[in-house]
Amino acid sequence: MARPDGRVPTQLRPVNITRNWLRQAEGSALIEFGDTRVLCAATVEDGVPRWRRGTGEGWVTAEYAMLPRSTDTRGARESVRGKIGGRTHEISRLIGRSLRAVIDFKAMGEHTITLDCDVLQADGGTRTAAITGAYVALSDAVKWLRKRRNLKSNPLSGSLSAVSVGVVQGQPRLDLNYLEDSVADTDMNVVMNGDGSFIEIQGTAEGAVFDRELLDKLLDLATDGCAELTTIQKKALSE
Amino acid sequence: MARPDGRVPTQLRPVNITRNWLRQAEGSALIEFGDTRVLCAATVEDGVPRWRRGTGEGWVTAEYAMLPRSTDTRGARESVRGKIGGRTHEISRLIGRSLRAVIDFKAMGEHTITLDCDVLQADGGTRTAAITGAYVALSDAVKWLRKRRNLKSNPLSGSLSAVSVGVVQGQPRLDLNYLEDSVADTDMNVVMNGDGSFIEIQGTAEGAVFDRELLDKLLDLATDGCAELTTIQKKALSE
Amino acid sequence: MARPDGRVPTQLRPVNITRNWLRQAEGSALIEFGDTRVLCAATVEDGVPRWRRGTGEGWVTAEYAMLPRSTDTRGARESVRGKIGGRTHEISRLIGRSLRAVIDFKAMGEHTITLDCDVLQADGGTRTAAITGAYVALSDAVKWLRKRRNLKSNPLSGSLSAVSVGVVQGQPRLDLNYLEDSVADTDMNVVMNGDGSFIEIQGTAEGAVFDRELLDKLLDLATDGCAELTTIQKKALSE
Amino acid sequence: MARPDGRVPTQLRPVNITRNWLRQAEGSALIEFGDTRVLCAATVEDGVPRWRRGTGEGWVTAEYAMLPRSTDTRGARESVRGKIGGRTHEISRLIGRSLRAVIDFKAMGEHTITLDCDVLQADGGTRTAAITGAYVALSDAVKWLRKRRNLKSNPLSGSLSAVSVGVVQGQPRLDLNYLEDSVADTDMNVVMNGDGSFIEIQGTAEGAVFDRELLDKLLDLATDGCAELTTIQKKALSE
Amino acid sequence: MARPDGRVPTQLRPVNITRNWLRQAEGSALIEFGDTRVLCAATVEDGVPRWRRGTGEGWVTAEYAMLPRSTDTRGARESVRGKIGGRTHEISRLIGRSLRAVIDFKAMGEHTITLDCDVLQADGGTRTAAITGAYVALSDAVKWLRKRRNLKSNPLSGSLSAVSVGVVQGQPRLDLNYLEDSVADTDMNVVMNGDGSFIEIQGTAEGAVFDRELLDKLLDLATDGCAELTTIQKKALSE
Amino acid sequence: MARPDGRVPTQLRPVNITRNWLRQAEGSALIEFGDTRVLCAATVEDGVPRWRRGTGEGWVTAEYAMLPRSTDTRGARESVRGKIGGRTHEISRLIGRSLRAVIDFKAMGEHTITLDCDVLQADGGTRTAAITGAYVALSDAVKWLRKRRNLKSNPLSGSLSAVSVGVVQGQPRLDLNYLEDSVADTDMNVVMNGDGSFIEIQGTAEGAVFDRELLDKLLDLATDGCAELTTIQKKALSE
Repeated sequence: MARPDGRVPTQLRPVNITRNWLRQAEGSALIEFGDTRVLCAATVEDGVPRWRRGTGEGWVTAEYAMLPRSTDTRGARESVRGKIGGRTHEISRLIGRSLRAVIDFKAMGEHTITLDCDVLQADGGTRTAAITGAYVALSDAVKWLRKRRNLKSNPLSGSLSAVSVGVVQGQPRLDLNYLEDSVADTDMNVVMNGDGSFIEIQGTAEGAVFDRELLDKLLDLATDGCAELTTIQKKALSE
Repeated sequence: MARPDGRVPTQLRPVNITRNWLRQAEGSALIEFGDTRVLCAATVEDGVPRWRRGTGEGWVTAEYAMLPRSTDTRGARESVRGKIGGRTHEISRLIGRSLRAVIDFKAMGEHTITLDCDVLQADGGTRTAAITGAYVALSDAVKWLRKRRNLKSNPLSGSLSAVSVGVVQGQPRLDLNYLEDSVADTDMNVVMNGDGSFIEIQGTAEGAVFDRELLDKLLDLATDGCAELTTIQKKALSE
Repeated sequence: MARPDGRVPTQLRPVNITRNWLRQAEGSALIEFGDTRVLCAATVEDGVPRWRRGTGEGWVTAEYAMLPRSTDTRGARESVRGKIGGRTHEISRLIGRSLRAVIDFKAMGEHTITLDCDVLQADGGTRTAAITGAYVALSDAVKWLRKRRNLKSNPLSGSLSAVSVGVVQGQPRLDLNYLEDSVADTDMNVVMNGDGSFIEIQGTAEGAVFDRELLDKLLDLATDGCAELTTIQKKALSE
Repeated sequence: MARPDGRVPTQLRPVNITRNWLRQAEGSALIEFGDTRVLCAATVEDGVPRWRRGTGEGWVTAEYAMLPRSTDTRGARESVRGKIGGRTHEISRLIGRSLRAVIDFKAMGEHTITLDCDVLQADGGTRTAAITGAYVALSDAVKWLRKRRNLKSNPLSGSLSAVSVGVVQGQPRLDLNYLEDSVADTDMNVVMNGDGSFIEIQGTAEGAVFDRELLDKLLDLATDGCAELTTIQKKALSE
Repeated sequence: MARPDGRVPTQLRPVNITRNWLRQAEGSALIEFGDTRVLCAATVEDGVPRWRRGTGEGWVTAEYAMLPRSTDTRGARESVRGKIGGRTHEISRLIGRSLRAVIDFKAMGEHTITLDCDVLQADGGTRTAAITGAYVALSDAVKWLRKRRNLKSNPLSGSLSAVSVGVVQGQPRLDLNYLEDSVADTDMNVVMNGDGSFIEIQGTAEGAVFDRELLDKLLDLATDGCAELTTIQKKALSE
Repeated sequence: MARPDGRVPTQLRPVNITRNWLRQAEGSALIEFGDTRVLCAATVEDGVPRWRRGTGEGWVTAEYAMLPRSTDTRGARESVRGKIGGRTHEISRLIGRSLRAVIDFKAMGEHTITLDCDVLQADGGTRTAAITGAYVALSDAVKWLRKRRNLKSNPLSGSLSAVSVGVVQGQPRLDLNYLEDSVADTDMNVVMNGDGSFIEIQGTAEGAVFDRELLDKLLDLATDGCAELTTIQKKALSE
């Protein structure tokens, strides 16, 4: 019951964060969870969407997408098909919602930060890698915004990271790669803040339902994984 | 801290299931959770999507939508806007995934059952009402299929129901209506099978993050709510 | 040459109108012509479309759609196909145009009333049922508008109803159901006001052309049918 | 109460039909009703739409469109807007339905004829000009088809023409131009076959409802107008 | 190695320009290069696109399209397919860009001129015919604009024409028709101003790469062809 | 008149090619022209588009796109806008057409190679960088195909590279960056094969027309630039 890449069940893949991978974005990070590579770019714009104008509050949103050949077989571009698929929509919404949980909109003023998370290479866990990397890009964009617009208080009210956990052949495992993910009975994505509280939990019975005991084990695994990711993010942001 | 409709925190709204509301569908149910009203229609078709042909296995899928004036203010039709929104996509996928958890595809043979869940009136909890009602329509459609196609074993491997739980002013509550939902700090949708195991958990920190203890309370509430809904479904299906 | 449901040629199906079927709309009616069931919802909004701004006049428009399983076999959702079909467009335009014939736009002021006519179950005559039901929902919405916006004169300048007539096996018949409609040689939809004048006539030779004499008989049938519907509408609106 | 171009109420505009305006189409006609100019092209293709395959019967369909600057002010292209408008849909369907009324599908065999009616210049009555011209193009395409595919019997079972009538300042008039059309109280399009029977009637109360007597007068006008157009078509087809 | 229509390699097809083919457009021309027929319509509108507002400068843009049966076999309408193809986009952009090279935007003031180039019949060289005809329509529209808006200086800073050249069986030829174009090894479209300078060059190796010497010969041919077209345009504009 | 990055007019930016940047694609290259970074991925698939089936010949096509924040200000995703822009279409077509000029389709057999060129960071010259990098990815994919499908002869009949040239303040320059490109009077993209012949020339007068002499100078510059790029490609492919 060894893992395909030799990790123990509680072990993350090697995680790498390259800050400022892009020269022009207000914040950016290339994040790698093993072979999964996501480019996260933060764009700061003055103004907010129409429904929010005049409130004095800012907005944070996200868009997730996969390059057509980020996967083992080529997928058609959503721009060519003329519409965005359900999975893309779902993940974009998840990333945006998660990031907004650590933002103080009043402190931002009427600015919008958009996080583009483009998967360059996919090997499982792209959405959790995207969230973890997006936080780093967001942090830099918030710094840029504070300085340029002379904001009094910090719009960033905390940190956040995300990881996937799952059950493979009855064994709870942390940070599944694609091979494991495709045979998992249960698949769960967990987003937590730096204090160890939950921001989002999405657990799905893929092949078998799960009981409360198994759920508890998965939540334990995720809690430890997110804590470790928080440390890696801090290190990247302090360099 | 009374609830707007006078319920105690652990109480469901009045739930009504009208089977065979449609004359032509192979299975149908109009389900009401208080003022929330969802029409669930099951369609049985021979054949399966292309990617599944030749496997001998069936398929179950779902589409969710809201009538434009099901809500307090009118929303534009997705057909008129020319594209399906992220929320619609997300809920359609959730319903289909949940239903597939209680289906034995081999027993179905190469047939497709599509569940259309159209919200006629919305007052919170439309996705969980849709899942709970869709199961009833699916049950009738499976009976129709077994009889007409002379299937040996039962494609339905269990039952399922769903309920929302949330935290309002610090208090965990079962089955939020729209008024409660719009001010909740945490919002969670839970799908369970008739044996009390989990099929899907989606918890989101709307206004405040949540810790493990609060999460446990919400899961307890949902477990009881789903058990109660299972009883109501059984009664409806036995009439 | 008996009709499939035993009616005489000049007989309507049982017509039922349930006012205020929706709790949140400014006006609504569930209308049934036999097994045909259409939910009509009227929405009042301040303001008018851009091309009408500054004229001091209001606007009334309509959108018609069928639920995917309102029919005998499931039809793909127009939202999923990404575009509205020709038939839907045509009927939406017919309903809107007909309703505008009994509206005094000046008396409305710059408000818009949108009628959503969603076919929950279809058994022929959905467009004429929609028009007849939409008038009831519109009446209630106009009352709501007069009261809330303190309008001096009544924006409703008359009533209207609609019915289909057709020729089946050489016999002119009133209010065709789906079975009759699918074999009719001529199919005609007639919209009239409460005074017995015409608002819209659409007659089509499906299987055989029709001469002036046959046309006259169809118009006689429709005139009587609309008069009867006017009485039913009045009764519903007086309750 | 003189007409803007000096015609008497029962008078058509000058009608011109140029056959074979296109070198490559199997049938084509440039038709002019005064300043209204429509290019009608008929395309013959082997095979029929999927839902008709294997029936041994043919199909006739039509597509109507306006060039962006066919009108007084420029209209956006439907290809640029990414969707076809309701009016375009409605007219395309009307033309196709009308043409099919004079076609014997069995005699055609499994071939499809598509009529493209593109309005090069619009001055009222474009849909009726399109139908009248499309018949001419269709006739030539049917001849082409009979010869090339060696058909035994004639797929064309009759002729058809169409004209608009309307009420302007209380006066019934034949073949309204744009100026008249825009102020008409009632607007009616009538499609008839060469024997003087009706194929389609579409009458709309634009500004005022109309009673049976007025309707009768409009039908008389249209009957005479269509007879005159039939003569013009015959002449064009005999050259 | 004679050309299919008997021309010598340096010879244009017969070119015909009918000015004011449309009664309502501010400028229009039906241009014919042999059997290729393009209707060019110029529309003048007050105001400019949003990104140009407040600059005091005007804008010129173009849209190219082919009627479905302009070609030998029918092509699907882009409006029906719901999107514009790459070739259409490319040619529309080329026409607009070329026309803008002879416009003084400051002299125009904040007005927009849109050139619609609709191919009624296609026999090769539609894009170069469109540019050559569009210039004539643009000239008339500019005259209209100068007069109506009382412009001081002339917004038209020069003239322009375009022609295709290509290599067929090793022989450089001017103004290829469809038959030649489909077998050409190299295909080049050249846009020049009235003074013989280049505005746009687009050369493509279709079947064989081309060296500098061949390129020079093609440029010579195009230079002479454009000069001849300039003369034809001048004649048309002086009538 | 120094260049913004200090280069002499005939100098390329530093060019870097990282082969096999992606683990899963059959060929891939990350190419950098200064700050311009394009990820080129080649996908080999069995079979060809429908219109080519049964010919025994292969097909090569390309898709170009820019990440939303590859540029100085964020651009909306084409997938979100629901349609592909004209510029994207134009460049995708250019890349595909260019690559096909060095392919022997018969030698390929019925396989399709798709080149995805995604701009990660843009600083001018993205289309020429894309072509130059796509050739490298294509080369590796062709090798993969030859080996896996045991092809007898080499489908690759030559090499190709591309470069932009332009006129800035009267001075012809090689390989413009964004700053130069945005103020250039003439902009030309040239695609050549490894033997120094032309595959595609696209020259556009942006701010001023250009005469034959200037054109000749630009072609000289491009010829030298492409030769240099050919050397760099060879080196990358030999490692």
